Amino acid sequence: MSEKDKTLSIFALGGINEIGKNMYVIEYGDDLLIVDCGAKFADESLLGIDLIIPDVTYLQQNEHKIRGLIVTHGHEDHIGGIPYFLKKIQCPIYATRFTLGLIELKLREHKILRESTLVEINSKSKLEFGDINVSFFRTSHSIPDCLGIVFHTPEGNIVHTGDFKFDLTPVNDQYSDIHKMAKIGEQGVIALISESTNAERPGLTPSEKVVGTHIEDAFFNATGKIIISTFASNVNRVQQIVNATMKTNRRLALLGRSMVNVVKVARDRGYVDIPDWMLIDAREVRNLPPEKVVVLCTGSQGEPLAALSRLSTNNNRDVKVLPNDTVIFAASPIPGNEKSVSKIVDNLFQLGAKVIYGSASITGMHVSGHGYQEDLKLMLTLMKPKYFIPIHGEYRMLHLHRLLAEEVGVEEGHTFIIRNGDVVDIKNQEARQTRKIPAGDTYVDNVGDDEIGDIVLRDRKVLSEEGMLVIVVTINKQDGNRISDPDSISRGFVYARNSEELIANVNEVVKQTIDPFKEANIMGMKRAIKKEVGNFLFEQTKKKPMILPIIIAV
Amino acid sequence: MSEKDKTLSIFALGGINEIGKNMYVIEYGDDLLIVDCGAKFADESLLGIDLIIPDVTYLQQNEHKIRGLIVTHGHEDHIGGIPYFLKKIQCPIYATRFTLGLIELKLREHKILRESTLVEINSKSKLEFGDINVSFFRTSHSIPDCLGIVFHTPEGNIVHTGDFKFDLTPVNDQYSDIHKMAKIGEQGVIALISESTNAERPGLTPSEKVVGTHIEDAFFNATGKIIISTFASNVNRVQQIVNATMKTNRRLALLGRSMVNVVKVARDRGYVDIPDWMLIDAREVRNLPPEKVVVLCTGSQGEPLAALSRLSTNNNRDVKVLPNDTVIFAASPIPGNEKSVSKIVDNLFQLGAKVIYGSASITGMHVSGHGYQEDLKLMLTLMKPKYFIPIHGEYRMLHLHRLLAEEVGVEEGHTFIIRNGDVVDIKNQEARQTRKIPAGDTYVDNVGDDEIGDIVLRDRKVLSEEGMLVIVVTINKQDGNRISDPDSISRGFVYARNSEELIANVNEVVKQTIDPFKEANIMGMKRAIKKEVGNFLFEQTKKKPMILPIIIAV
Repeated sequence: MSEKDKTLSIFALGGINEIGKNMYVIEYGDDLLIVDCGAKFADESLLGIDLIIPDVTYLQQNEHKIRGLIVTHGHEDHIGGIPYFLKKIQCPIYATRFTLGLIELKLREHKILRESTLVEINSKSKLEFGDINVSFFRTSHSIPDCLGIVFHTPEGNIVHTGDFKFDLTPVNDQYSDIHKMAKIGEQGVIALISESTNAERPGLTPSEKVVGTHIEDAFFNATGKIIISTFASNVNRVQQIVNATMKTNRRLALLGRSMVNVVKVARDRGYVDIPDWMLIDAREVRNLPPEKVVVLCTGSQGEPLAALSRLSTNNNRDVKVLPNDTVIFAASPIPGNEKSVSKIVDNLFQLGAKVIYGSASITGMHVSGHGYQEDLKLMLTLMKPKYFIPIHGEYRMLHLHRLLAEEVGVEEGHTFIIRNGDVVDIKNQEARQTRKIPAGDTYVDNVGDDEIGDIVLRDRKVLSEEGMLVIVVTINKQDGNRISDPDSISRGFVYARNSEELIANVNEVVKQTIDPFKEANIMGMKRAIKKEVGNFLFEQTKKKPMILPIIIAV
Repeated sequence: MSEKDKTLSIFALGGINEIGKNMYVIEYGDDLLIVDCGAKFADESLLGIDLIIPDVTYLQQNEHKIRGLIVTHGHEDHIGGIPYFLKKIQCPIYATRFTLGLIELKLREHKILRESTLVEINSKSKLEFGDINVSFFRTSHSIPDCLGIVFHTPEGNIVHTGDFKFDLTPVNDQYSDIHKMAKIGEQGVIALISESTNAERPGLTPSEKVVGTHIEDAFFNATGKIIISTFASNVNRVQQIVNATMKTNRRLALLGRSMVNVVKVARDRGYVDIPDWMLIDAREVRNLPPEKVVVLCTGSQGEPLAALSRLSTNNNRDVKVLPNDTVIFAASPIPGNEKSVSKIVDNLFQLGAKVIYGSASITGMHVSGHGYQEDLKLMLTLMKPKYFIPIHGEYRMLHLHRLLAEEVGVEEGHTFIIRNGDVVDIKNQEARQTRKIPAGDTYVDNVGDDEIGDIVLRDRKVLSEEGMLVIVVTINKQDGNRISDPDSISRGFVYARNSEELIANVNEVVKQTIDPFKEANIMGMKRAIKKEVGNFLFEQTKKKPMILPIIIAV
């Protein structure tokens, strides 16, 4: 393909009109690069489904073009889909040292670490993939070692921000490369792809340092044990908890599998500084006076199987919550998790603990890792893009991000609010959005690692809301005559009262439906039963249970 | 029963450790009075259940003692259970003029208005029920015509606050009877029963008037149509919307059944002042210039069937959302409703509307009707109760309310944090909590008005998360020999891939399980199939679907 036949294409396979399962693609001629491969947790409406990952049909069809998967940072919505992706598609993964540590944890769990190709990069790396060269810049976020990406293409430079905020006083030197960003902007950016999570929030994101002072205050005020919960991946917050532990002369126990694992990765790779003497095993907690102990644990989102939830019902073998212990939620509940968090607070109060929880604006125990409106405008101003593609947000966030972009100089009509699968094509420095490639949700069921289909889900939905009715009749296979009375079994459907009468009536309807048949037309009988019994039940109960007629011909 | 044998008992049948289905009981000797009869909306975990109402077994057993149901105000969590209650128990209902209007709407819908006994009271009413006399005081809340209740009993005065805040600049003269409250406190209160909804929030609740100024500002800034949504029952906010409509020379259309109904009740009974010329039918909206119209509608909580949701997808016949229309959410999303509200905002942005939504602390478009910590302390200070029973809240709210009470002088150990069904007995002015009466949730299914049982719910839960497998085998009823191959049908369970093989294996397991039987032991065969197939499936898929063996003996 000669250069004049080539088009630069940008699209998302996930991350648009949702928070979660981020996956973006930059394609030029025969070179295709993927950015991130996230997962999204399913909500209750997806019955029994645990994880949602991007549909990668397009990538499977174009596997020969794929040059690599570049990962901006180690959050679940950017790396959670990788094990499932690698089971379908072989390709090298590029990520920073800390991000790779988290990816390795996952691949080891899925027993595919050995056959995977992982390449460590840093913000100074330069990579070449056919016609696309790639360089990077550092960003601040709520996890260490984050990257923004510059794709140098024959059509111009594309910038992907990854997740970011501007934190001018970051913990552990996690500074943004502002000078580098300015230089990139000066060199010219044809398209900026920027995250939109906090496009609804006015102002500038507070610095992570702010949380540190509140943690310190709470530690100095505490009289008993301190139990503090945050996201394990927020290593900078973990560092501030370590610092406060130091200042109050306490020892630190880690509780919860992901806390232990992630802190180990962070210590091994030099992203958090915890002196050896400070760390104790959870089993040692009971042997120390409460005022000498900090327990750092998972479960700040109310996850029912995480450490904090178990502590709140005193179901942990090693650590007991005692009256006057202080429990701190050093993380705001993500929308949707409020109820689970509240339940834990209720339980902790019942155990007599003091609990610091609720809105970060009151407790000061959390700041966001995602830039507010002023952060987003600063990025747009630094990059001065010709075209703008807001990503990583629901529609209203993308919409508001567009308004911000126009405020700081992006031309009207130069912002593309796309959906997953919509392709922005750039040719001769002009961008247009016309085509669409397949994109959607792939469901992963909890234990089996198996993908499950729409039909199974639809069935579960009916079963869960309307219940079901199995109807069994035996007929003579010669003449279709009924041999037995119909028998009906309901589950999740019939009300306690009147149920016997209702079932008797159903059986009567079944008889009247199949007795006129003059031959053993099993399909016909099934269809007729579904229709007649369905109508009868809707009339009687206003419900539409799943009806499963079973005709046995003997 | 002589006075010395009588005990004063206080308990809740709903409203404790939950927000919703409030129902409280004051009982002395043979006189029993009920306060409120609310409903609670079911969340998604209660599959297919719409409404939860209190379990009134105790009241049915003591129907001869019931003197009346006194209703503090007209919110769903205080009146929503009344129709279901009246179908079980005959008793007169006492409520203020506006509250009665809302109750009548409900009873008419359930076609039981005519046979119900409704008694209008006001804050000056005095009622006598055997040994218990009752008087009232006015409170401010987010609905007009609210009452607090004083029960004058031989053991002393019990005060039930109803829902309240202190609003010193209320809309439409909905003042609190502060002087009367002070007098009640001076006369002595043996027990205060007070609501706890906002016990977590520091400070004093802002006045409803504050919302009025923000509404006015938004109306003056709007260029196109204004669509504004709030709770229909918040008649004072409706009044402020009417006032802003007046000031901006617009006409007002009401949209949504409950908005039309409630505003009619409020107008008929004099709780809101809307000039006739201002009101237009929704069908007239299209005939007026957009800048001359305000549409006041239901759906501020994102309810999928309410007016605003339909507008957001332009599915209303009469009113279309046009670019530059302004849509205002004049109500904060109740926790749990954020996602539905967000979806509507997304849709409205896609239609080109300006949308004012989100946190009340940013928009100013909502204030709570429930008192914050300082309001609660003021009530406690006015009433100076000997004993305190915090109600209307989850555990953490009750717990924090207790701490507030102790701060303003309630003795330690004199606060009872009860659960639904726990009884506080007062005898010789000493209160103790020892007994428990039955209390719990009664589920009402959506259409049928029928109550449904725990087993049905449990089945739905399994069906929804694990799916099911029906296994049919025909045997000879003489010797138990298998006549047909087993046949298995799955719904909501088997993954698309491998399913045929899995089902074939299941059938094999069934064969091996029942073939050893030497007689037609149907129950035994069913048990064996459940066990063996269950184990096999769990081993293979880590799932535990519902297994329904059906054995046909011919």
